Amino acid sequence: MPLSQPVTLPFDLRRPIIGAPMAGGPSTPELVAAVSNAGGMGFLAGGNKTPQQLTEQITSTRTLTRGPIGVNLFVVSANDADDEELEAYRQELQDEAAGYGIEVGTPRWDDDMFQGKLGVIRDLRPDVVSFTFGCPDADVLDELNTLGIHTAVSVTSTAEACTAEDRGATILVVQGPDAGGHRATFDPAVEPGTEPLPDLITAVRNAVGLPLIAGGGIGTRDQVRGILALGAAAVQIGTALLLADEAGTSPAHRAALQDPAFTETKVTRAFTGRPARGLRNRFMDMHERSGHAYPQIHYITAPLRAAAAAKNDLQALHLWAGTGYRTTRTGPAADIMADLAP
Amino acid sequence: MPLSQPVTLPFDLRRPIIGAPMAGGPSTPELVAAVSNAGGMGFLAGGNKTPQQLTEQITSTRTLTRGPIGVNLFVVSANDADDEELEAYRQELQDEAAGYGIEVGTPRWDDDMFQGKLGVIRDLRPDVVSFTFGCPDADVLDELNTLGIHTAVSVTSTAEACTAEDRGATILVVQGPDAGGHRATFDPAVEPGTEPLPDLITAVRNAVGLPLIAGGGIGTRDQVRGILALGAAAVQIGTALLLADEAGTSPAHRAALQDPAFTETKVTRAFTGRPARGLRNRFMDMHERSGHAYPQIHYITAPLRAAAAAKNDLQALHLWAGTGYRTTRTGPAADIMADLAP
Repeated sequence: MPLSQPVTLPFDLRRPIIGAPMAGGPSTPELVAAVSNAGGMGFLAGGNKTPQQLTEQITSTRTLTRGPIGVNLFVVSANDADDEELEAYRQELQDEAAGYGIEVGTPRWDDDMFQGKLGVIRDLRPDVVSFTFGCPDADVLDELNTLGIHTAVSVTSTAEACTAEDRGATILVVQGPDAGGHRATFDPAVEPGTEPLPDLITAVRNAVGLPLIAGGGIGTRDQVRGILALGAAAVQIGTALLLADEAGTSPAHRAALQDPAFTETKVTRAFTGRPARGLRNRFMDMHERSGHAYPQIHYITAPLRAAAAAKNDLQALHLWAGTGYRTTRTGPAADIMADLAP
Repeated sequence: MPLSQPVTLPFDLRRPIIGAPMAGGPSTPELVAAVSNAGGMGFLAGGNKTPQQLTEQITSTRTLTRGPIGVNLFVVSANDADDEELEAYRQELQDEAAGYGIEVGTPRWDDDMFQGKLGVIRDLRPDVVSFTFGCPDADVLDELNTLGIHTAVSVTSTAEACTAEDRGATILVVQGPDAGGHRATFDPAVEPGTEPLPDLITAVRNAVGLPLIAGGGIGTRDQVRGILALGAAAVQIGTALLLADEAGTSPAHRAALQDPAFTETKVTRAFTGRPARGLRNRFMDMHERSGHAYPQIHYITAPLRAAAAAKNDLQALHLWAGTGYRTTRTGPAADIMADLAP
């Protein structure tokens, strides 16, 4: 069946490139603004921040660009974590903690202050709000759409795409299996799909009528062109921006991305419970089965990750990276955008 | 009446110097650890952070020092903010916001996630936890004391000192009127005292039997010696550490502290509603009366402060500094500590 014309985004971009929201530091206001100023659209990462911090970041970004900006929020689902499994993982990590002279973290669940951040979105009205790890209820999407805020949902399968469309999302962010960082899969207990991005885009296009932003593992202009040729309205890049001058990527993370000692990426649940792709290191290999209780495992490992960062221990740190990380270059984000523009 | 021997701290310090908790960036784990490694005790600033961020900072600090560390929490009291006054201040600030192409913030009250952070303190047990803007209830202090965590309360008057002692605090942090940043005054509606630090120390020593950490405006070795001679068990320094290599002080703040265009400090409520001392600039002078609703005014100005930071606008930014800021020097914190050690 021949595909129809690509469905376009509900706003104009000079360059059909989206800067992925990268929580934990990389997506600074400066990076987001630089991507938007270069003709694309940058996304702030609202995850793991207070509503206040999100307010500050949106405001800062607005002063640095007149272009469109997006904000990403986590949608954390309730879970019935297995306490014995969590305790077993804490025990497993005791040696790691002892090595740093610290304690393993206490598992707990929270919703990442979703309502508070939704309030910030209502007040400050970024051009687009995207959701990851789940899809908000229809009434939430409806309210945001009515306010003139475009609603995007990150999906990793046709089923998730259909759910998001049914509930009223106006854009889908299709994330392929090569993406760095967390997979957006709604149910953390499910193994994320491995369908290659081009196949996933085609399947989603056949199933829903929404404009698609697609990405995961994209690091070259040819790849950008290939994704657009499949009918995506824009391409999302993340890892490609990690070494940008404006990125808040930690020095350790920057060093690792350029260190030939790291030879591949791998998907792991060891750091947070949710599957995420990063540079393969000792911690990943030693802690292969860590359950899927998110964010409980995120909180168990938080002190270890903080200690590894403080000690610059690249073999114990989560070094998120997509499969295309070898093509990541340093320099101003504008130059990276120019390199990738179709 | 001759004063008795100074009451000593319940732990040993090689140097009787405390690094003040400075929220908003300066007090990084690296700075806190450097102060502790230099024989004093550094304090992390728990205010305006998530419990998770506090967890990460305590853990990072523990990996960087074996010395004692402190953590400061805000104790935010309920208030009956005058909605009309808040709205009037929002109107007054519209021009500032428009200049940046942004909106004034929405006022709201919250308790800075006090219970969540208390949970982190219980789990991670820093050597000392200090409280600012108020004194927790006796049962909270009692529980922490029982866990072996020393409890310190920041006070600005003899009355506050007596309250803290009555409720079970084991250390007092006596803050004089020359201190940079927020005054610790319990009731934000009250004008903070102007009694000089030496007089305040003497008055508090006559009223309570607890060991005192005292500071505010201290920037030279002679001043440190003078405070100790009055019977303080240790001296707290804050502004003196703002230009340390390990401090997270923003580039704008660093520049302002060394800019001869700034000639004095001033106490203002314009930025947050609570009195705080900083380098005198246009924003302070233009917005002299801003009410005392904290943290509502903090949230009203948050977007303006973020925008001013993004635009490097030193005349609109809160540039906290104590009166001794001219003696602040750059370099490793260890060198600053050595300069000030009695």
